Amino acid sequence: MISVVILGAGNVAHHLYKAFFSSENVTVTQWYNRNIQSMRPFNNEVQLTDNLSQLIEADIYIIAVSDDAISELSQQLPFEDRLVVHTSGSVSPYDIDMKNRRGILYPLQTFSREANIDFSEVPLCIETLMRKDYDQLKELGQSISNNVKRVNSDQRASLHLAAVFVNNFTNQLFRIAHEITESQGAEFDLLKPLILETANKVQDLSPFKAQTGPAKRNDKKTIKRHLKMLDNEDHKDIYKLMTASIQKTHAPAFSIKKLKKIKKD
Amino acid sequence: MISVVILGAGNVAHHLYKAFFSSENVTVTQWYNRNIQSMRPFNNEVQLTDNLSQLIEADIYIIAVSDDAISELSQQLPFEDRLVVHTSGSVSPYDIDMKNRRGILYPLQTFSREANIDFSEVPLCIETLMRKDYDQLKELGQSISNNVKRVNSDQRASLHLAAVFVNNFTNQLFRIAHEITESQGAEFDLLKPLILETANKVQDLSPFKAQTGPAKRNDKKTIKRHLKMLDNEDHKDIYKLMTASIQKTHAPAFSIKKLKKIKKD
Ligand SMILES: NC(=O)c1ccc[n+]([C@@H]2O[C@H](COP(=O)([O-])OP(=O)(O)OC[C@H]3O[C@@H](n4cnc5c(N)ncnc54)[C@H](OP(=O)(O)O)[C@@H]3O)[C@@H](O)[C@H]2O)c1
Ligand SMILES: NC(=O)c1ccc[n+]([C@@H]2O[C@H](COP(=O)([O-])OP(=O)(O)OC[C@H]3O[C@@H](n4cnc5c(N)ncnc54)[C@H](OP(=O)(O)O)[C@@H]3O)[C@@H](O)[C@H]2O)c1
Repeated sequence: MISVVILGAGNVAHHLYKAFFSSENVTVTQWYNRNIQSMRPFNNEVQLTDNLSQLIEADIYIIAVSDDAISELSQQLPFEDRLVVHTSGSVSPYDIDMKNRRGILYPLQTFSREANIDFSEVPLCIETLMRKDYDQLKELGQSISNNVKRVNSDQRASLHLAAVFVNNFTNQLFRIAHEITESQGAEFDLLKPLILETANKVQDLSPFKAQTGPAKRNDKKTIKRHLKMLDNEDHKDIYKLMTASIQKTHAPAFSIKKLKKIKKD
Repeated sequence: MISVVILGAGNVAHHLYKAFFSSENVTVTQWYNRNIQSMRPFNNEVQLTDNLSQLIEADIYIIAVSDDAISELSQQLPFEDRLVVHTSGSVSPYDIDMKNRRGILYPLQTFSREANIDFSEVPLCIETLMRKDYDQLKELGQSISNNVKRVNSDQRASLHLAAVFVNNFTNQLFRIAHEITESQGAEFDLLKPLILETANKVQDLSPFKAQTGPAKRNDKKTIKRHLKMLDNEDHKDIYKLMTASIQKTHAPAFSIKKLKKIKKD
């Protein structure tokens, strides 16, 4: 049985708490937040506190607070030489105060309070500064996820950056599609099955193999018509840049000059 | 019972054929392609032909050939005043030769030969030039899909353009994420659950509400670090443009000057 204390009560902390609570191998000994309010519903299940000096002993302390607050909170911990990990994709393990043993438990998924997530499918990227801590953090990860991976800090940073592309930027493309369809009185809803299939396709096929469409075919007539339809200059720029990017990926033999021309047109 | 003749034997034609074959309300009377080869496996189920002069009578003729070939093929049809529709998102119904009654049956999904698609969930955008043809085309659509919508040509064009954003451009963001992770020896596979969740999220939530991340939070430190990590200039440009786009969507009050600066940096 591994005992943990969770620090923070935001999106990640709530999802982690629920996953640990359902696991037979983990017990959440205590749950800390600077403000106890949002943890109240769990009052009967776990000891709650908003006082760092009252933190009790546990095998692993998980700091799941905003990136900017990790370092300071770690300095305020009233103990030494215990295993303390944070859950951020972009913060260094060295940002945790060095009086404790340090590590990372980064869940590679987007969490919000409302959305239910099957934690067993969430990739958990783990790292510890000391070799001897690794096995226990791995065991903790495996008690809630089937997908635990050792990932060093450079790899974690690249995954976090890549996540911005596949999540934030992709979602903004959906937003632009929403604006384009609404401007013609068409329903964005009609695009939803296509959005799902686009994500499904790359579960088995590489994005390279999954690509189709006018940019890949270099269908100049359609590209020109699309650019004419777009009256928002930012959407036009994105259309040109993404088209050029697809063409570079799929036709490295294309003259670079030609591509630069498309980009600037 | 509605009888149809399918013309063309590519991705869309094959998926349509299978959907009609499974429907109780439709019979595929004949299947034409200029080259009979790829239809051979269906020889026992349906009459095949590669000869336009042998086309037999049917209620609806569906032209599912490449966009550029629709007009010419429609001119070669050896009959008049029958209902002829094509399946393209971007070709006008007026491209079909005017000797016949004309319409559109545009399936808003991405089809490839290997991938199985549940046709009942595919949005079918329909349009007919003559009012009296509408009901029959709608009945045909409803025999294979639960999601049949009347969509005029401007709306269809905007849906087709929006589909390029949510399918082709999104898939290219996945490709870039693949390159970013591989360059650090990290696994693209770890991003797959996030890719699925990103698509799932907008099934119930608007893309506006679903947005998160450094661009929306205007987390300058992270944005700067990400730009420093990207050594591919095209990926950097895409990062800047998508970040500026998100910020424009979520903070219309942002000074435009500031945004232009981010874009150009
Ligand atoms: N959300 C995701 O999708 C996601 C995914 C993977 C990793 N992460 C990482 O997980 C961590 C938590 O993210 P989140 O989304 O759960 O954040 P969140 O929902 O915004 O919650 C932030 C938490 O941090 C606390 N906090 C903020 N500033 C603090 C300070 N100065 N001192 C003490 N506590 C402070 C907040 O306390 P109050 O409740 O009192 O405001 C709250 O409990 C971050 O490192 C993030 O990078 C997030
Ligand atoms: N694929 C999609 O995801 C999708 C989605 C919605 C709508 N559409 C639309 O559906 C239509 C068909 O697309 P597809 O993806 O099925 O195409 P495809 O797989 O490339 O197949 C093209 C078909 O057109 C025939 N063809 C090409 N040029 C021809 C010509 N000059 N004369 C006669 N036949 C010719 C081909 O014959 P051969 O077999 O002899 O080469 C083949 O049967 C297009 O209008 C497309 O815009 C496609």
